[in-house]
Amino acid sequence: MDNFTFYSPTYFVFGKETEAQAGSLIRRFGGTRALIHYGGKSAEKSGLLGRVREALTKENIPFAELGGVQPIPRSGLVYQGIELCRREKIDFILAVGGGSVIDSAKAIAAGAVYEGDFWDFYLGKRIEKALPVGTVLTIAAAGSEGSPDSVITKEDGMFKRGASGDAIRPLFSILNPALTQTLPPYQTAAGITDIMAHLYERYLTNTREVEVTDRLIEALLLTMIHEGPRVIAEPDNYDARANIMWAGMMAHNNAVGVGRSQDWNSHNVEHELSALYDCAHGAGLAVTLPAVFTYVLSHDVMRFAKVAVRVWGCQMNFDHPEVTAREGIEKMRQFFISIGMPKNFAELGAREEDIPQLVQALCYGDGREGSISGFVTLDTQDCEKIYRMML
Amino acid sequence: MDNFTFYSPTYFVFGKETEAQAGSLIRRFGGTRALIHYGGKSAEKSGLLGRVREALTKENIPFAELGGVQPIPRSGLVYQGIELCRREKIDFILAVGGGSVIDSAKAIAAGAVYEGDFWDFYLGKRIEKALPVGTVLTIAAAGSEGSPDSVITKEDGMFKRGASGDAIRPLFSILNPALTQTLPPYQTAAGITDIMAHLYERYLTNTREVEVTDRLIEALLLTMIHEGPRVIAEPDNYDARANIMWAGMMAHNNAVGVGRSQDWNSHNVEHELSALYDCAHGAGLAVTLPAVFTYVLSHDVMRFAKVAVRVWGCQMNFDHPEVTAREGIEKMRQFFISIGMPKNFAELGAREEDIPQLVQALCYGDGREGSISGFVTLDTQDCEKIYRMML
Repeated sequence: MDNFTFYSPTYFVFGKETEAQAGSLIRRFGGTRALIHYGGKSAEKSGLLGRVREALTKENIPFAELGGVQPIPRSGLVYQGIELCRREKIDFILAVGGGSVIDSAKAIAAGAVYEGDFWDFYLGKRIEKALPVGTVLTIAAAGSEGSPDSVITKEDGMFKRGASGDAIRPLFSILNPALTQTLPPYQTAAGITDIMAHLYERYLTNTREVEVTDRLIEALLLTMIHEGPRVIAEPDNYDARANIMWAGMMAHNNAVGVGRSQDWNSHNVEHELSALYDCAHGAGLAVTLPAVFTYVLSHDVMRFAKVAVRVWGCQMNFDHPEVTAREGIEKMRQFFISIGMPKNFAELGAREEDIPQLVQALCYGDGREGSISGFVTLDTQDCEKIYRMML
Repeated sequence: MDNFTFYSPTYFVFGKETEAQAGSLIRRFGGTRALIHYGGKSAEKSGLLGRVREALTKENIPFAELGGVQPIPRSGLVYQGIELCRREKIDFILAVGGGSVIDSAKAIAAGAVYEGDFWDFYLGKRIEKALPVGTVLTIAAAGSEGSPDSVITKEDGMFKRGASGDAIRPLFSILNPALTQTLPPYQTAAGITDIMAHLYERYLTNTREVEVTDRLIEALLLTMIHEGPRVIAEPDNYDARANIMWAGMMAHNNAVGVGRSQDWNSHNVEHELSALYDCAHGAGLAVTLPAVFTYVLSHDVMRFAKVAVRVWGCQMNFDHPEVTAREGIEKMRQFFISIGMPKNFAELGAREEDIPQLVQALCYGDGREGSISGFVTLDTQDCEKIYRMML
């Protein structure tokens, strides 16, 4: 196991009707003037925004509002948010939504107290301070509610970049599983896939002797396999939603990923797909994961056999472990299809003729020099083959 | 799943030679004059105390020292520590040791900034504030390094009581698995048993639909079963020590116990044993757990069958699930014996003739009125039978 540090100071308030505590939580964490940041109209229509406003009003917390965060959050709205925070002397940002809204709120939080361009942080500058952020989560997926991370797309060029820092960690996150019951099945399934991808990205490691985190990751994958099909079949199943919501947080606050190298190649391969086609990140991952895993399987057959046996219930083939390893990947692929995720480029809305462009963006974007690195290093030829496996 | 809050803001620094960061961490968390609190001579002999002193000196942090914490920490030393903190104007307490030292440090931290008797907190008074506490952990067992809890024994009457509060949570905890390599095998085994008991106490729940926490607890139990025998056979196995150390923290910061009722009857039954006989808490638990579980098995046979199958690798007996349930308990019992733990009263140094006294203390101590409550409610007759099962 490698040396590591672990820090997850977010205060989680989990359960039914917990959004009613938004105002008192902002007070508790020192906020006096809030920005409510959100996405589309669904938060308004469902009544959630109304309940959040009421919670703040009850605590006499004045607030401004900024909606319109898109599924892949853009820099334009971040600049608007920064401007608004300064004008209204906001001292607390409450994100009401999923990963995109929370990521956008984190960007605004860092930018509002910084003299330069907030994009500097997404080019690698350290985030020293930020306005405090709280969240009311509406989809179990990105794990941004418990992470120090934010991903924003710069509209000028559509560059997608990440920033990270303890200063933008949510001080509190309100997790009410009932809020996810009204999600369309496709979004629920994309969230499930995203959570499972966060787990697999940590599972694929080159660090030896990490039984505790292996087992914890397997536990969360098993939970997703158990609860995922239940919420697709019964969207109102509160308990299944609750299990997924806690698993989604645990999958990405890194408690189960400490002390080991991680992969993240699949996320990088997928990012080019959702950037180009505006598809759901989780849907892109459902197509990406089987291809990447099959391509890199020979790098560590026993690791793939292990997850096949322990998580997917495959019988170990002791003579030919690679058969078991492949069976585990196939079961994962079938699982994604069974919950309604796309299985190939066509279903995703991606096009074969764009592959050179995808490879170029992947291997040379983000300051890369012809390859991406993680569990294995993949060059342009590897990446082209991987995209072709998704056809 | 039940509603819950979860808060675990401790900053964990994990790995080899991390005790060298003790000084810079105290600085980072605002400390300027420290008390180094520790137990017996082993910390001195091993060189650990020397390295910690050096780390503080390097950061120009003056410090006082208070050693002598006993395995079951006593109020007398807490009063000394409080006095010392006030006299020396200490503003940070660094616990160097295991759960007892950390618990003692937490008590001193709360008492030093309180005008009344610190024991008030152990009688139920809310801890509003405390001096900041950091830890350098030397045994994986109690989980106090990541918990808000402290257990102290009042010497006047030898009452053992617990207190809890976010104010006494360690701000940082240094976890260097190498520091545990020099522990005597018996202490290592007692620590392993304590960690497994923390997991079982959470596993035994009356809350339905808690798959995610069930799976996480199972993952940590599986880790202990895999790594426990390895560290007994190879005390210097750093990686096995590391896996156990992270499992021990995760077992007790409650990330795997949220949203569900918990048991803690076994801990209560055991506490009377270690209070009367001064035996290691883990050793007492090794004798207690099989007896309590066998006694309450009929309350939820399927829960015991589940842990038997998923954790202990038993084959499910679908006609007679109770056979599987019992098999799981027997495997657990044999596991504790295999790592060197006692199996009955005699090996623990307990006496049959003391059973009435144990039952009396258990069922009427701590403000109880003839019974203890958890997974099931146990009255004096139940408790007597349980102690007799340990003969």
